[in-house]
Amino acid sequence: MTSITKAACIGGGVIGGAWAARFALAGIDVNIFDPHPQAERIIGEVMANAERAYGMLTMAPLPPKGKLIFCKSLEEAVEGVDWIQESVPERLELKRGVITAIAAAADPKALIGSSTSGLMPSDLQRDMKHPERLFVAHPYNPVYLLPLAELVGGEKTSRAVLEEAKAKLAPIGMKGVIINKEIEAFVGDRLLEAVWREGLWLIKDDICDTETLDDVIRYSFGLRWAQMGMFETYRIAGGEAGMRHFLAQFGPCLSWPWTKLTNVVDLNNALVEKIAEQSDAQSGARGIRELERIRDQNLVGIMHALKAGDDGRGWGAGKLLAEFEEGLWAKAGKAKVDVSAAGPLRLVDTRVNAAWVDYNGHMTEHRYLQLFGDTSDALLRLIGVDFAYVEAGHSYYTVETHIRHLGEAKLGQALYTTLQLLASDDKRLHFFTRIHDAATGEVIATAEQMMLHVDSKAGKSVSAPAEVLARIAPIAEAHTKLPLPEGAGRSVGQKKHSEG
Amino acid sequence: MTSITKAACIGGGVIGGAWAARFALAGIDVNIFDPHPQAERIIGEVMANAERAYGMLTMAPLPPKGKLIFCKSLEEAVEGVDWIQESVPERLELKRGVITAIAAAADPKALIGSSTSGLMPSDLQRDMKHPERLFVAHPYNPVYLLPLAELVGGEKTSRAVLEEAKAKLAPIGMKGVIINKEIEAFVGDRLLEAVWREGLWLIKDDICDTETLDDVIRYSFGLRWAQMGMFETYRIAGGEAGMRHFLAQFGPCLSWPWTKLTNVVDLNNALVEKIAEQSDAQSGARGIRELERIRDQNLVGIMHALKAGDDGRGWGAGKLLAEFEEGLWAKAGKAKVDVSAAGPLRLVDTRVNAAWVDYNGHMTEHRYLQLFGDTSDALLRLIGVDFAYVEAGHSYYTVETHIRHLGEAKLGQALYTTLQLLASDDKRLHFFTRIHDAATGEVIATAEQMMLHVDSKAGKSVSAPAEVLARIAPIAEAHTKLPLPEGAGRSVGQKKHSEG
Repeated sequence: MTSITKAACIGGGVIGGAWAARFALAGIDVNIFDPHPQAERIIGEVMANAERAYGMLTMAPLPPKGKLIFCKSLEEAVEGVDWIQESVPERLELKRGVITAIAAAADPKALIGSSTSGLMPSDLQRDMKHPERLFVAHPYNPVYLLPLAELVGGEKTSRAVLEEAKAKLAPIGMKGVIINKEIEAFVGDRLLEAVWREGLWLIKDDICDTETLDDVIRYSFGLRWAQMGMFETYRIAGGEAGMRHFLAQFGPCLSWPWTKLTNVVDLNNALVEKIAEQSDAQSGARGIRELERIRDQNLVGIMHALKAGDDGRGWGAGKLLAEFEEGLWAKAGKAKVDVSAAGPLRLVDTRVNAAWVDYNGHMTEHRYLQLFGDTSDALLRLIGVDFAYVEAGHSYYTVETHIRHLGEAKLGQALYTTLQLLASDDKRLHFFTRIHDAATGEVIATAEQMMLHVDSKAGKSVSAPAEVLARIAPIAEAHTKLPLPEGAGRSVGQKKHSEG
Repeated sequence: MTSITKAACIGGGVIGGAWAARFALAGIDVNIFDPHPQAERIIGEVMANAERAYGMLTMAPLPPKGKLIFCKSLEEAVEGVDWIQESVPERLELKRGVITAIAAAADPKALIGSSTSGLMPSDLQRDMKHPERLFVAHPYNPVYLLPLAELVGGEKTSRAVLEEAKAKLAPIGMKGVIINKEIEAFVGDRLLEAVWREGLWLIKDDICDTETLDDVIRYSFGLRWAQMGMFETYRIAGGEAGMRHFLAQFGPCLSWPWTKLTNVVDLNNALVEKIAEQSDAQSGARGIRELERIRDQNLVGIMHALKAGDDGRGWGAGKLLAEFEEGLWAKAGKAKVDVSAAGPLRLVDTRVNAAWVDYNGHMTEHRYLQLFGDTSDALLRLIGVDFAYVEAGHSYYTVETHIRHLGEAKLGQALYTTLQLLASDDKRLHFFTRIHDAATGEVIATAEQMMLHVDSKAGKSVSAPAEVLARIAPIAEAHTKLPLPEGAGRSVGQKKHSEG
């Protein structure tokens, strides 16, 4: 997978800062240049949001965070980087000047993406050197979570550069979508502008207020559009007769009187005030930070749901997330765990985040089970039982699990898990996992588990192949020397444990 | 909660049939009148989809399904019902005629909703008797899953009727949203029409193809709109400065040259053919039934994700789902389980649905844990530990769990769970749960669990109150007479169990 080695963000703010967060969380160092006196504070806030969101988004091993390096000049920032993202204010002269300066100072092979949401790339690349590597990479807020980047080339942009940009976005979890022809506002903002224009008329004419309009979106087609777009949705609505049938039905509507609302509304002070007041009534009870938190939690939840879509194969943004995670696992590799170490294997490091806790700030039971599952998954990867192995028809299934809750994990608490192999043979893995508080090492919960190697299709247990058994052997040898863990071999209620 | 006692659907098809499914799955009998010779088959297919979707959607106890009664005349269908939903084809004369006939035959107090997606209610109610009870109840496909109904009154509609309609939709899991003023196409289809018009231009002008356009939607603002609408999203984008700041920034765009696309596109044969071909390339590899299955699974997943939103309090369509489920639990009551029965308590009946299985059609480990959790939740409700009890600050926490997998549950398999109390005292519940195949009674998995009564805030175990202990007593008395279950008191790997 082709990757960005080092990036530069010219222009911070909410968009530029979120690009920087995406790069850094994928392990890429980022040079930042933004003359705004508050740039460092603003980017720091965006980065904090992004880190919280990623804590919920994935249990895959994020690489060591890339450094955010604040530079004194544009020239210093673009030196030695292979992706430069421009996110300065939306004025053609300004953007063109900045891009021309970037091109003069940067490596001629470095890709230059502009975050513009409406300007034409041909206009942006007019004065620059090596204009073939300039393109629009238009993201959506919050950039650290929403995966789309519209990739738009100008007259002088090379197609190969667009393909390279698309390939380089994949490892940072983004979906680059190449737009055929340049047009003001590209595709996404065209569609949004159309809805916005219509919405303004509906508010102005008192057909509904902003809360009602938002409810109409989020209880109906918003749910549809999170997973399929407009055309695929309508294809289904057409039934077996498909798209042609649907178009025949829907077509006539276009000439209905509805289209009178295509005139441009006058967004004068009175309308601004009306919208602002309705918006206060709708959302004013919560601060922006709280709404951001809710939004990010929901976006993460929706992407998780889509990851389970199409019978577990993943769908849309969820499939993309799964691919991103596979990349993270591949990068993390198998080498980092010393399987012949003297103690139990330390396999998962994590932190209790906002999505994992109940009303009282305690980690929910379900998340303990997830952590135990992630730990056994890590063990399986270590012995060569990865995604490809499972797809090929064999796997280890859990046949027995004994969980004890000894303490409580709380919001923000850092945790790690350790696993001790108790016994193994050609079919069986019998092991004991502990969840520890990272600060004190205290054991918060334990799971004793038995897994059986199976032929998945036949649903029968079979011996694991020699290469898997060979990877188990050194772990088994190291772990048989360890004392039996406190709590292993125990039945439910057999011995009182300490109560919190 | 005010409820519909019996409903009528005039006009079947995809929309009328899905209304019928919503009613029936909420336990309401439905009279159906549709002269179409295939009506019964079409409604049967929609009903099958809806039942599959509800199997995934909720573990709450759905009431006995309402009957679908196919009637020979409109007059027969509307007799004795209190909600009549009209879903005949979208032609004013036809709809007005049908509504006038409904009004002549129905109880004057019966509510009459029209599924029209564009016609004005004032035009529909012109000739009818008691026009004050006619309103538009405009739903979204698939009606059995998407919760929105736009409620729009005409000149003669009473406001009280709109409020009554809204209240009556809640127990069937729908969000009735009252639109202030009637306008052609109301709010949702206005917005959709705007996007559609813009989209047609983008395709016609070869800016992108249908797949790219759909990807732009579903990887960006579609994810946003599943949870917040346009105004609340933009409010956040405005940052601390809020909506006024955002409007000041976005406002000028409206006069940009983008608005040239507001002309009406000529949806001629060439454009229809182009769209149909691109749609085939995009989605043709999957049949409509498969796409429907994927869509419904994703919608369910998204609603589940939103149910966990706002730190478990629920958000948008997920909060609505939680409220719907609370209603189902309340209706199911506590009386149905005979706590002094001779055997273990049968607490959960369910079926393995498409969202619960892996590639090989086997129920995933996670779903076994969910079933055990649902069973212990059912026990807790039985002894008075319900949502209100937990919110008031006390609960039972699981401290120990021992799970054995003895067989495999497969897609479509009917299952039930039974629970046997092994021991209890003022703080503890020690019980054994079995998951059975419903056809043979065979035990597929077991869980032995220990729960502890706690003061949630203090995080300390405390005695359960007398009223809870009093509800435990008869169960404990009945169950101590039962033999200890095979597998209870066992530690992991203690004794070989049979392998599949």
